Amino acid sequence: MHEFELIKKYFSKISSNNKFALNLNDDVFFDKKKGLVISIDTYIEGNHFLNFKSPKLVIKKIIRSSISDLICKGVEPKFYFISGSGNQKSFSKKNLLAISNSLKQEQKKYNISLCGGDTTYSNKLSFSITSVGYSKNIVYRNKAKLNDDIYVTGNLGDSFVGLKILKNKIKFRKRVNNYFINKYYHPDIKIPLAKKLLKFANTSIDISDGLIADLDKMLNNLNCTYQIYEDKIPISKYLSELIKKNKLKKSKLISNGDDYQILFTASTSKSRIIQRTSRILDIKITKIGKIISGKKKSSILDQKGKQILLKNKGYIHQF
Amino acid sequence: MHEFELIKKYFSKISSNNKFALNLNDDVFFDKKKGLVISIDTYIEGNHFLNFKSPKLVIKKIIRSSISDLICKGVEPKFYFISGSGNQKSFSKKNLLAISNSLKQEQKKYNISLCGGDTTYSNKLSFSITSVGYSKNIVYRNKAKLNDDIYVTGNLGDSFVGLKILKNKIKFRKRVNNYFINKYYHPDIKIPLAKKLLKFANTSIDISDGLIADLDKMLNNLNCTYQIYEDKIPISKYLSELIKKNKLKKSKLISNGDDYQILFTASTSKSRIIQRTSRILDIKITKIGKIISGKKKSSILDQKGKQILLKNKGYIHQF
Repeated sequence: MHEFELIKKYFSKISSNNKFALNLNDDVFFDKKKGLVISIDTYIEGNHFLNFKSPKLVIKKIIRSSISDLICKGVEPKFYFISGSGNQKSFSKKNLLAISNSLKQEQKKYNISLCGGDTTYSNKLSFSITSVGYSKNIVYRNKAKLNDDIYVTGNLGDSFVGLKILKNKIKFRKRVNNYFINKYYHPDIKIPLAKKLLKFANTSIDISDGLIADLDKMLNNLNCTYQIYEDKIPISKYLSELIKKNKLKKSKLISNGDDYQILFTASTSKSRIIQRTSRILDIKITKIGKIISGKKKSSILDQKGKQILLKNKGYIHQF
Repeated sequence: MHEFELIKKYFSKISSNNKFALNLNDDVFFDKKKGLVISIDTYIEGNHFLNFKSPKLVIKKIIRSSISDLICKGVEPKFYFISGSGNQKSFSKKNLLAISNSLKQEQKKYNISLCGGDTTYSNKLSFSITSVGYSKNIVYRNKAKLNDDIYVTGNLGDSFVGLKILKNKIKFRKRVNNYFINKYYHPDIKIPLAKKLLKFANTSIDISDGLIADLDKMLNNLNCTYQIYEDKIPISKYLSELIKKNKLKKSKLISNGDDYQILFTASTSKSRIIQRTSRILDIKITKIGKIISGKKKSSILDQKGKQILLKNKGYIHQF
C-alpha cells in the first residue's frame, strides 16, 4: 500500500472534523488563526539517507529537507526539533560532535534555532525533524487553476546522479563525482523565495519524491492535469554534458526525487513578477509546462511534441 | 552516556542563544510571546513499549504519555502528530484499523485532534508523537523554592507491576493481573488539573522515568534537595495488598517509572487550595515530602526516620 493511500484510508477520516490538518492532504499543519505552521518528517538510514559515514553531511541533508517543506509553502522556518534513534556507534562522541557542529552551521546559514528533541536507543538509525514557522498565510496544495503556468526552481536530477555515484553504480572523474555527491548532500534551499511565493503561487510543493510523483501529489484533488515540455526541464551544465557524452536519456534522470526544488503553478498574469523575483533574488525559476483540462491526460512532451513514457514516476513509500 | 549528559554536552551550547528552548532543560518547548507549547517524544518497541501484540493499547499508552508532558506543565493539549516507522506486519490492515480506532477514542476522551504525521518503512517499530498546546504560561522545571511541599497525583508503582506481569516475571490471580496490566497501558491522565497547576505549582514534571529519577531531573539546576517520606507515597489498594501478602518492599516498587503521574512542588501557603482542587476535581493529590537546603543530602525516610537506599533510581536512557 502506498503511503498516501494508507494515510487517506485510515487516518483522514479521524481528522476530518479538523480544519487545521488540511485533511492530512498537505505537507504541513497550518493553524491560520494562530499563524502556526509545522512540518514533521522521519529519515531512516538506508531509506532516506544512504548511510551514516558522514554524519555532518547527513545532518545537513535532513535539516534542509525538513525546512524545505515550510519554504515551499511560503513560510520561513524559525525553530526545529531533532529526535535521534540509534546505537552507541551512531552516537559516538566523534559523531555527536560532528552532528552538533553541522547543526550549528545550518542554524547560522538558515537563521533557525534548535528547540529540543530527544535521543533513544535503537539498532536502526533514524531521525525525526520537526520544523516550525509563523505565517499568516501559506501556499496550499490542490489550488492550481486551469491554464496556470508550471514553474520549478533550480535544476533537477543532480541529486539522483550523486546517489548513484555513492552507491557505486556509476563513476566519473573525481571532480564530476564530487559535484554530484555535493548536490545529493546539500539541497539548495531558498529561504528568500519563501515569502515571495505567497505573492504569485497558486499552489506549490517541494520535489522530494520526483518531479512527476510530486506534480501528481500537488494536483491530486483537482479536476485538471498537466502538460510538461521535457526540453524545458532545467538541468545543470554537468548533467547536460553527462547526457550528451554518455547518450543517456534526460527523461530517466529528472524524476527520481531528492531534488528539494520548489514546484509551483501561477497565473500567466504573474509571469513578469516571477521573472523579476528570479532576477532580484538570483534564483533560477523555469517555466516547464501548463495546467490543462482534466479531460486530457497528464503528459510530458518531447521536442517534437511526442509523449514520453516515464517508467520511474518517482519514489513512493511502499508498505 | 546518559541521555541528559548527552544532550547537555553536545546540544545545549548550540541552543544557548535561544530563550525558547529553555536551554533544552525542560520537557517542552515554550514560545511565551506566541503562547505555543510543543512536546516531542519517540517510543520504540522493546524499549518504551513491550511489543505490538495489542496495537490498540500501545497507541493509548504512547498518546497519553505524550500529552502528559504538556499537562504536567499546566497546558491542555490541542493537536497531535504521529509518525510511525515499521514493517508490513506492524502496519497490516488489521493493525492500522486498530490504531485508527484507538486514536479516535483518545481524541474524543481528551479533546485532541490528529493533525498530521508520516509513515516510513523500518524493521524496527517506533512512533514519534508531537503534542501541541497553546498557553500564556507554563510551570517550569527547576523553580522549586526552599521549604516547598512536594506533591504527587494518583498512585505510583501499579504500572511497573503491570509490566512485570506482561514480561511473565510475576503472576497473580487473573483479576489482579488485569488490574495492573490495565494500569500499564492506560496512564491516568488528568487534563482538568492542567490549568489549575499554573495557580499553585512552583515547578513540575510528569513521572516517566521513576519518582526519584524525575525528582532529580525536576531539581537538577537548583541548590536544594528533597526529603521524601516513604509511607506517604501513594499506592493503590491492590499494590498495598500485594506488598502485605508477599512481604515485598514498597521502596522497590514505587520508583520504576511509567507512572505518568504529576510531581510538583508548591509553597506551604498553597496547601488549602491544593486540597480544595483535589476534592473538586476528584483527583488524588498527596503531599509526600519537602524541599530542603542543598547542603543536606536528598533522602527518602522510612517510618522511623531512617534513610532508605534505593538501588534502582529509575529508568535512565543509556548510550
